[in-house]
Formats: sequence, C-alpha cells, structure tokens
Amino acid sequence: MKIGMIGSGVVGQTLGAKLAALGHEVTMGIRAPGPEEMARPRDNAATLAEWTAKSGGRVASIAEAAAGAETVFNATHGEASLAALAAAGKASLAGKVLVDVANPLDFSRGMPPFLVPALSGPTSLGEEIQKAFPDALVVKAFNTVAAAVMVDPSLIPGEHDLFVAGNDAGAKARVTEIARAFGWKNIVDLGDIAGARASEALLPFWVRQWMVGGSPLVNIRVARG
Amino acid sequence: MKIGMIGSGVVGQTLGAKLAALGHEVTMGIRAPGPEEMARPRDNAATLAEWTAKSGGRVASIAEAAAGAETVFNATHGEASLAALAAAGKASLAGKVLVDVANPLDFSRGMPPFLVPALSGPTSLGEEIQKAFPDALVVKAFNTVAAAVMVDPSLIPGEHDLFVAGNDAGAKARVTEIARAFGWKNIVDLGDIAGARASEALLPFWVRQWMVGGSPLVNIRVARG
Repeated sequence: MKIGMIGSGVVGQTLGAKLAALGHEVTMGIRAPGPEEMARPRDNAATLAEWTAKSGGRVASIAEAAAGAETVFNATHGEASLAALAAAGKASLAGKVLVDVANPLDFSRGMPPFLVPALSGPTSLGEEIQKAFPDALVVKAFNTVAAAVMVDPSLIPGEHDLFVAGNDAGAKARVTEIARAFGWKNIVDLGDIAGARASEALLPFWVRQWMVGGSPLVNIRVARG
Repeated sequence: MKIGMIGSGVVGQTLGAKLAALGHEVTMGIRAPGPEEMARPRDNAATLAEWTAKSGGRVASIAEAAAGAETVFNATHGEASLAALAAAGKASLAGKVLVDVANPLDFSRGMPPFLVPALSGPTSLGEEIQKAFPDALVVKAFNTVAAAVMVDPSLIPGEHDLFVAGNDAGAKARVTEIARAFGWKNIVDLGDIAGARASEALLPFWVRQWMVGGSPLVNIRVARG
C-alpha cells in the first residue's frame, strides 16, 4: 500500500520505518524538502538522510506525499496538525483513510503538557480534523502510547489495549489490520470520531504515569464488569 | 474513625454506607438538613431518611459533619465542591485527611460531559481544593470508577487499579488503608496532588467506555514495560 506519512519526528519516523519494513511504499511528507532538511538533526530522532537510508522510505513535500498515497498518517504535533494537513490539500485527502496519531498537547507552560483548550473539552483534534476535511476517512489511533510501542506492543508485557475511533467502519477495519500487523491483539473501538475525545484525554494520564513510573513504556488495559 | 461525608448523592451515600458498615461513625453533611431534605427524592439514590435507616449513618449540616470528623470526604459535584467545602470551613478541615472523590464535569452541553476548563488543563479540582484549603491533607482518590465499584472492586473481575494523589504520605497511607478495606488490591500512587490532573483526565475516557460498552462497570489497569 502507498502510505503518506505527514510528520518527520520520532512518531513519523517510527511508524514510517515499520510500515516500510512490512512492505508498504512510504513517502514522508515534510514542509520544506531539500538537502538542508535531510541533514538537520532532530530531537530524539534520526536525520531524514539516516531515516531514508535505513528504512527505504523516501521524503517529499507534504502535498506530494498525500497526493500519491492510498492511506495518510498524521504524525505531526497536534497544534500544527490542521495547518500541515491543509498543506496536503483537501483533494488529496478526499476518500482516503487518514490515520490521526497526533495529540493536541500544549507545552507552553513546560512539563507536563495539557490538552490545548480549543482542541479538547467538547471537541478533540480528531473531530476538528474530520470537520476540516469532511471527505477524509479520519481514524484516531496509535495516539495513546509511545512511538516504539505503537509498532511493537510486545515492549509492554501482558494484555493492553489500542484504541480506534472514526466514522467509517471500513477505514477502522483497515487501521485495525495495520495495527494487527504491528502486533496489536486488543483493539478497542471507541465508536465514531468523537471517541477521539476519550483517547486524547488519556494523554495527561499517560504523561503522569511516565513521570511517576520513570518509563514511557506504559499503556492501559480496559477491565469490564 | 469519625467520617464527615460531604455530599448526599449516590457517591456520598454509597461511600458513607460502606464506611458505616465497616464500623466507622459516618456523618453526612448537607446544605440544609431538616425533614424536607430527609424525604426529598434524589436522582439514582435513596432518600436520606432511607439512607440513615439502612446505613446507620446520620445527617447534619456540612459545617457540623466536617467539624466532628477525623477524615472528611468530598463527594459533591465537582463544580460545587469549592463552595461546599467553604461551608465546611477552613478550620474544620485543617490538619485532616480530605479525600476528594469529585470530578469537575461540565454537563452544560449535555452528554457526554467534559472537564470544566477552569478546573482542568494546567490545574485540577484536587489542586484547587488543596490551594483553597492549604492546611487540609487532600488526597484525590476513588474518582475514576462508579460508586458501586469504589466500595466493591470485585464487581469488575481481574486486575484493575485505583489511583491516589496527594502531597502528604501519611494521608495517602490512610486512604490506601480505607481502599484496602473496600477490597482494592492495586493502588497506584500518582505522586503529589498534581496527580489529580491525571485521574480527573480519565473521566472523558471512562464515560466513553461506558457509552460504547453499555455498562458503568469499567475501569483500567496500568500495564508497564
């Protein structure tokens, strides 16, 4: 499958590399492709030159990555997601599965971050993306765990869950298939895209677990009576 | 132990009855004690006349319930908590364990509720209570599950967690002891009272799980790598 990976940080690199390793054709979309960006050091992640060499993925503009893709991932910072997807263009996202991995985190007061007020409460980033791109098949997924865990849930032993939310059942089925290829066994359907409120709300909880437990290798399992 | 239970809804009644059954002396504090309030029908809960008859607890003013207590529970609606605790009075809360069970939920747009903006994001209800009553030993606890589960975690089979947060280790130890008496085995310490941000953030997630799963008997288990 042709995958457009919007975002070049650790999340985009990790998802992109894993998808490429599974045989997908991955194009990472960035704002300003070119030699300078390929060589630029990135926080907690490889340079894009290193990433392409290692993963076999390629790098292009956001518009090109989205236009050529069958499935698009949003792996940008949540505060920048709507602008990045605008650069992809409505036409290039129409009818496509758009996997929204981003979280609307506000780091303006340092650590720990909190949810961006305009993108939380009675809405969510997932819903705002769906509103802005009504013809895209938005599926919120993978946003509740660290990048390494997204593509290798066995890093956390025992049972734990991945959450998906979206309006289109077929799109959720495709994302579920991708998740199973990553090794996920327990995939919890949170219903329509308003379920993104639930999974994005986990972030402050997740960050706190990291702080008190000392490791980002943390997730949750839903228990029911 | 003498317990002041501020709040007369299903949470206050359930916690109060269980604590009384365990041998504690429970006084429920309400705004306007008197025959009318004792007989008034309550949403999803017994009348207070029924509650006192069944539990052996008694009903008094908020001020009286707090003044006579060694440990005080805040089981009011989150939006009303600061006002209810103001009625208890700073002096009556000073030096006492104050178990904050409330969640700052905004139902103004109907279901599902979201977190009250002024009591979430870079703060939490637990922290605002601690700020308003600096001499109280505030412990956020029990707020992440349904009332029935708070006092009987076996309603949900398997492993699942209760979260506590607070600045005072001794106060957290007392709340942990109460939780163990209720049957809780897995009690996760979220650190200081800022940990209330994490457990209050679970509410939108919890409500969604109830919506999609059809039962409020739902909780989570933290899994670590």
